[in-house]
Amino acid sequence: MARILHDLVCIDDRRPSPFCWRSKFALAHKGLAFEARAVGFTAIPRLYGGGHKTVPILEDDGRVIADSWAIADYLDQAYPDHPLFASPAERALCRFTEAWVFSSVAPLLFPMVVRDIHDHALEQDRAYFRESREQRLGRTLEQASAGREQQIDALRASLGPLRLMLTVQGQSFISGDRPGYADYIVVGILLWAASVTTLPLLAHDDPVVEWFERVRDLHGGIGRTSPTYAIAS
Amino acid sequence: MARILHDLVCIDDRRPSPFCWRSKFALAHKGLAFEARAVGFTAIPRLYGGGHKTVPILEDDGRVIADSWAIADYLDQAYPDHPLFASPAERALCRFTEAWVFSSVAPLLFPMVVRDIHDHALEQDRAYFRESREQRLGRTLEQASAGREQQIDALRASLGPLRLMLTVQGQSFISGDRPGYADYIVVGILLWAASVTTLPLLAHDDPVVEWFERVRDLHGGIGRTSPTYAIAS
Repeated sequence: MARILHDLVCIDDRRPSPFCWRSKFALAHKGLAFEARAVGFTAIPRLYGGGHKTVPILEDDGRVIADSWAIADYLDQAYPDHPLFASPAERALCRFTEAWVFSSVAPLLFPMVVRDIHDHALEQDRAYFRESREQRLGRTLEQASAGREQQIDALRASLGPLRLMLTVQGQSFISGDRPGYADYIVVGILLWAASVTTLPLLAHDDPVVEWFERVRDLHGGIGRTSPTYAIAS
Repeated sequence: MARILHDLVCIDDRRPSPFCWRSKFALAHKGLAFEARAVGFTAIPRLYGGGHKTVPILEDDGRVIADSWAIADYLDQAYPDHPLFASPAERALCRFTEAWVFSSVAPLLFPMVVRDIHDHALEQDRAYFRESREQRLGRTLEQASAGREQQIDALRASLGPLRLMLTVQGQSFISGDRPGYADYIVVGILLWAASVTTLPLLAHDDPVVEWFERVRDLHGGIGRTSPTYAIAS
């Protein structure tokens, strides 16, 4: 089989990358078999002669595609069955879902779990991870994660749109009756956190938990192919 | 012409309803001519022999359709050209955009503008409006709107997803290169507020302002067919 998704790895074969999760779900959505090949943070620049700083990178029958959006577009072009985006508007609306995640959810979650990511990184990746993330944060990992328990309520509140969709609107998935790329974007950010943190990110009776478990089960349980901690208290 | 959209009216022919705005944009999106017929809060139950509590209500060639989602679905069925939803997933993603608005933006905006709505309601509607909204809020309109200037920063922050989409993602509309129903949902909530409040809801250099003005200009300027105050400081 010549289809490889290079997938960020931490200790215990944990696979936290939210961007890699999207691509794994996208491949599974299309029923395409693939190897999720483990790569640590600092090993990424050695792939394909260098030039790549992040994963996912997809190698498909000799072609190499980097970036989760480029991979999704490539998959829809090369394998039109089970489209990820049936129209340009559908793709744009998924982008907007990503904009919601990256402006409302991820900024809360990142300082809460950044030290957990460090502690779960492969030993040879920890110094790089600490230095690059402390530069981005403008403070130490320890400072960023101090008092993080007090952010749990805000994090749970930030998922209000998903909760309202599930309860008031009665929609099973962000994409409707059937799951789609917007669901994969959002589940990716939660799998990212649950891969490394023991914080109870959600309350046990939150309807978001049911959605999370339902999405993990999809496509043969693609969302259960690497270890996580319990997401709910 | 036998196409009438019953549209909530306040003084000075102001038309605040965010749900009516969606339907007006939807009709204009399809190039369908219509009369936006003014109706005050307390006159709605007298339409079509009673049974309706809210607008929009569309009368189209003898058929009567209430509720903005039902109207959108009806329009796509009756007039397939220029679809509002090209796929079930597109509709579902628009619902999720609505879930974002109603969990993240509207709860901030409602207490900020509720007294302004009261003050702009037709004289015969004010007692009804006050009583029903004070019951919903569990406090007086004056209590709800006290200190509302301190909420402006939070309101502006709540529009983060739209701002990130416009800047980092470089997308012109929530629906992509071309505007769609998700844009109409979001512009509706801002037109609702701008119809009645003189609060500077947005900063003058906020990229959201450009998007707002661009959407208002669409389809022959459908978003400028009734008076508003300036949305930006």
